[in-house]
Amino acid sequence: MSLERNEIMDANNLFYQAFNQGDYSMMDDLWARQHDVCVIHPGWAPLHGRESVMKSWRRILRGVMDHTTIITNAKVYLMQGSAFVLCYEPLPNTVLIATNVFVKEGGIWKMVHHQAGVVYQVVVEPDESAVH
Amino acid sequence: MSLERNEIMDANNLFYQAFNQGDYSMMDDLWARQHDVCVIHPGWAPLHGRESVMKSWRRILRGVMDHTTIITNAKVYLMQGSAFVLCYEPLPNTVLIATNVFVKEGGIWKMVHHQAGVVYQVVVEPDESAVH
Repeated sequence: MSLERNEIMDANNLFYQAFNQGDYSMMDDLWARQHDVCVIHPGWAPLHGRESVMKSWRRILRGVMDHTTIITNAKVYLMQGSAFVLCYEPLPNTVLIATNVFVKEGGIWKMVHHQAGVVYQVVVEPDESAVH
Repeated sequence: MSLERNEIMDANNLFYQAFNQGDYSMMDDLWARQHDVCVIHPGWAPLHGRESVMKSWRRILRGVMDHTTIITNAKVYLMQGSAFVLCYEPLPNTVLIATNVFVKEGGIWKMVHHQAGVVYQVVVEPDESAVH
């Protein structure tokens, strides 16, 4: 896997690390500041703009304690200066599938969008993800 | 709205036109050929690669007849040479929220990813979308 793909996978893993640790400042740092951002939490209406997005994370992370989501089957899709990652998010009672979109700001991959939704039929493929 | 944003909105509308008309060749033409593509249909596992993606559309479009999904609240998020659109997809019995990712190939916006999932609480905002 190329250096760039590794960097994107690292940014994606950082997102789940912030989530699992309920670490708001890590999450805040990960989200882009030079691009418009948005988020679609499972079942929610989309939230547009950094203020709404971060407010939702603050609320969600407050409820996360000793949560361990170990993502699987992460796959990087590289574009020019932007990228997205697809991965499963196995939760205690359900499995979600996520699209995480990243852009490079100051040489660092930052998140601009996250959509997660319930998946009813998980297909297990050879796992290429660099899950930490 | 800038010319580029209009072009992206047009590409997004083309996607729903192909869907509503059950037009496989229009759909096939819209999806990128120089980038890896993937799709997450509601509740499905992700499909990776053009062959799997187009096979799924062939199957889905076969079932679409006189279907009219008029998207609402489409919003364009522009990156460098790529972009994504968020929009609601009101279906007869449910409302979906979609992320549609596009890249430019030969000067034309092509689709590289589509994720749609059920939204349980639709928030109606002033509609900026150029729905045709």
